Amino acid sequence: MAKRINLNADIAEGWGAYNIGNDADLMTIIKSANVACGFHAGDPNTMHRLCMLAKEQGVSIGVHPGFNDLWGFGRRRIQMKPADLEYMVAYQIGALQGMAQYAGVKVTHLKPHGALNNMAAEDEDYALAIGRAIKVVDPSIIYVALYGSKMQWAAEKLGLRLAREGFVDRMYYDDGNLASRALSGTVLKDGEAAAKQTVRMVLDGEILSMNGKVVKVEVDTLCVHGDEPTAVNTARTARAALEKAGVEIVPLTEMGL
Amino acid sequence: MAKRINLNADIAEGWGAYNIGNDADLMTIIKSANVACGFHAGDPNTMHRLCMLAKEQGVSIGVHPGFNDLWGFGRRRIQMKPADLEYMVAYQIGALQGMAQYAGVKVTHLKPHGALNNMAAEDEDYALAIGRAIKVVDPSIIYVALYGSKMQWAAEKLGLRLAREGFVDRMYYDDGNLASRALSGTVLKDGEAAAKQTVRMVLDGEILSMNGKVVKVEVDTLCVHGDEPTAVNTARTARAALEKAGVEIVPLTEMGL
Amino acid sequence: MAKRINLNADIAEGWGAYNIGNDADLMTIIKSANVACGFHAGDPNTMHRLCMLAKEQGVSIGVHPGFNDLWGFGRRRIQMKPADLEYMVAYQIGALQGMAQYAGVKVTHLKPHGALNNMAAEDEDYALAIGRAIKVVDPSIIYVALYGSKMQWAAEKLGLRLAREGFVDRMYYDDGNLASRALSGTVLKDGEAAAKQTVRMVLDGEILSMNGKVVKVEVDTLCVHGDEPTAVNTARTARAALEKAGVEIVPLTEMGL
Amino acid sequence: MAKRINLNADIAEGWGAYNIGNDADLMTIIKSANVACGFHAGDPNTMHRLCMLAKEQGVSIGVHPGFNDLWGFGRRRIQMKPADLEYMVAYQIGALQGMAQYAGVKVTHLKPHGALNNMAAEDEDYALAIGRAIKVVDPSIIYVALYGSKMQWAAEKLGLRLAREGFVDRMYYDDGNLASRALSGTVLKDGEAAAKQTVRMVLDGEILSMNGKVVKVEVDTLCVHGDEPTAVNTARTARAALEKAGVEIVPLTEMGL
Repeated sequence: MAKRINLNADIAEGWGAYNIGNDADLMTIIKSANVACGFHAGDPNTMHRLCMLAKEQGVSIGVHPGFNDLWGFGRRRIQMKPADLEYMVAYQIGALQGMAQYAGVKVTHLKPHGALNNMAAEDEDYALAIGRAIKVVDPSIIYVALYGSKMQWAAEKLGLRLAREGFVDRMYYDDGNLASRALSGTVLKDGEAAAKQTVRMVLDGEILSMNGKVVKVEVDTLCVHGDEPTAVNTARTARAALEKAGVEIVPLTEMGL
Repeated sequence: MAKRINLNADIAEGWGAYNIGNDADLMTIIKSANVACGFHAGDPNTMHRLCMLAKEQGVSIGVHPGFNDLWGFGRRRIQMKPADLEYMVAYQIGALQGMAQYAGVKVTHLKPHGALNNMAAEDEDYALAIGRAIKVVDPSIIYVALYGSKMQWAAEKLGLRLAREGFVDRMYYDDGNLASRALSGTVLKDGEAAAKQTVRMVLDGEILSMNGKVVKVEVDTLCVHGDEPTAVNTARTARAALEKAGVEIVPLTEMGL
Repeated sequence: MAKRINLNADIAEGWGAYNIGNDADLMTIIKSANVACGFHAGDPNTMHRLCMLAKEQGVSIGVHPGFNDLWGFGRRRIQMKPADLEYMVAYQIGALQGMAQYAGVKVTHLKPHGALNNMAAEDEDYALAIGRAIKVVDPSIIYVALYGSKMQWAAEKLGLRLAREGFVDRMYYDDGNLASRALSGTVLKDGEAAAKQTVRMVLDGEILSMNGKVVKVEVDTLCVHGDEPTAVNTARTARAALEKAGVEIVPLTEMGL
Repeated sequence: MAKRINLNADIAEGWGAYNIGNDADLMTIIKSANVACGFHAGDPNTMHRLCMLAKEQGVSIGVHPGFNDLWGFGRRRIQMKPADLEYMVAYQIGALQGMAQYAGVKVTHLKPHGALNNMAAEDEDYALAIGRAIKVVDPSIIYVALYGSKMQWAAEKLGLRLAREGFVDRMYYDDGNLASRALSGTVLKDGEAAAKQTVRMVLDGEILSMNGKVVKVEVDTLCVHGDEPTAVNTARTARAALEKAGVEIVPLTEMGL
């Protein structure tokens, strides 16, 4: 059977009169969409539109919960009590489940947004709070967790379905952790280099670290970005390379997680 | 079989560090709680707390959607496109369904808040938009509609479950419509007078209008308020009078709607 | 001495991570900018940037207060108590005055946004509430009021400096009132037609109404839009026609109001 | 001449339909009020009401800027770019200056709120960003800075007027820093103990640390709280003790800063 992988991206981040992002292009590349749910971005209208579009294009939809920080677009680190965070995530899951009824589809996964994703990758309390929200509201939801992160640990600890996540256009440290975006050169802008890393990650479960060391990175889903034109091109190039290598691009629900 | 009636009230309207209302008292009087869902009031924490409390006290919970107007507490009339309104209500239904999972209870009904309730009582487009949101997200939800309003009409037109609503402490016009709060004397502050009107409404399906005319008002649920101490006393007095008259106070789900 | 006129536009309507509008183009056409102040749009960053830019380009800056309705972009009609509205406007004036200190410029005028502008044009209470805020916070601020509106009446009644406003790309009724945008054909998309109407309005104080009647419309400032490419072209064409006709385009502060 | 001291408190933290705090009591104790400006709490109505009351009671008013985090009541630490923070503070200063026109009073000082105060006490970038906003918008404003904090350092570095702040009801470490509220026993609930520490701090510029060491703490203003009934009693007791010791309680503007 052919090797399979999922591609995911953040989607539906407009709000009110405001638009942002590159949903139309991204939706032709990915197979699972992380839908903003009104806290860091997104509103009922964008959620509705994206659910309909996702159904039409065979893309599975997931919750993309963020901090209640619309002005900061969920990119500012915020100190929260774990219980506050848990209920805030539970609320966002429910809200998307409501909107998904318009398309008659199920919410398949959850991936935290921006600063919440970064903090939950490092912080056990945050990672568990998010996991508990999934467990209570809908335990069939797949927890998308950065490979090797505290989120992966929390998903395993809580017995949740887990999708380990890698990045198409980012470099890694020797220990398999994602290199900080703040370091120069850690975002791959060369499509071919990104494609090569991606194919190796998917087929062999390993990559070359920043220092050229072979490192294990085993993933079920790959994140692609749409914030700049080069990111979309990189995503397209990586996807084409995966397909050429015989890898099938599927929704998270078909990954056997 | 004993005559039955439901008592409902607006609940869980705190937000962040802010508290408001009289939840503890009201929850001992009512059998169905209208839970604010974060748009005009309410947040995941208050929703969670109320769901747990409702389960404990045998009170059924419902969505209490309001305009996205936290500053105005949902009391300012806002002009919205029906589709915007519909998705905004659908979102709030889903959010409460998510939070209700913590208590393992079902969301039983929906009653609009404040200015949205007033506008939907008069405006077919608003009344239908709310009804469509119910129909799509969960058609088992009972639409709580002011007796004789456009909401009642919309619920019937869409084939939704309907609870016709009356008021314990408000006077009525000759045509069976609720008299405006802006008119002096239309809010009954005398518990005995309120109790008398309430019992007649429930047992005989009629009341005396402001002009002393006998008017048909048939209801399945009665709204009580908690904004001032007298309102809570009025509610208690009316409830006691109903029980003394042999009426059973039950959750909306036991009204056979 | 040459005839003078002011051109104004709404500016700085981004918020947080979100951008909107066409500030760069508009700033080369207008001489007075209406700066969004954080309620319907705009935030401290956009206000700061616009103040610096306005100083550099010799454009005067004004307050563009809107409803506290970011989601609705200030385009939804909202029912407010006049006192609430007044203080809300006073707050926005102060906020822009604070930001204007960065550029060392004065706030010269005030023009309400969107639905607030529409409502204040028709409603004496709204028009007066806005005028009182100006009078208290800084009576040197010029009240930009749709020609013939209740705002013009309120400015005169309160003894405020007044700039009567017309539109470059809109048709008028026989009574000199602006024709509703909802009516087909009332927005002039043909630059030449708009330019012709504009020059006649400025030089002769009259226009041809929708029905071809000559109507008096005396204005001190003309509003241009940037929401679509054609609007910017229309504005440019009208400006060029005014200059060709010998009219000088100046900031509101040089209109002798 | 009698020794003088200022007492300050956070005030006007209601928002929309929500009330919080104990303004009426506190306003009879303090001589300078820190007015919430709409970001973490407060709105134009509460600001207006407080400005009128402050004038009536001879209390000077100051800006109390907080994070743009209404839900968190400004108590959550948020990571911000210094420039974003600076403009956000400048905006809040201007907004209060606008509202102060209703009372015909000047804005005399600025004290950051909650988590922003805590972070600016420790972080040079935050402390300077706030100072620069004061310097640009109104350099006559006094920067209220926790004694020994980075804010004190920033005020001195920027050449701003400075009021060093101490606490009536809090214990201190041996190095003169405020002991963390999280440590048990560091909030003085005994009015007499608080009064004794306060008088010694004001008259002798020293206190006894948690470990009983005599430590220099020189202050121009003392913060009192109103969040719980005991806090108000402590404040009253401390004030009475100061007056009995011959200390005059004055607005910040009369401290000769």
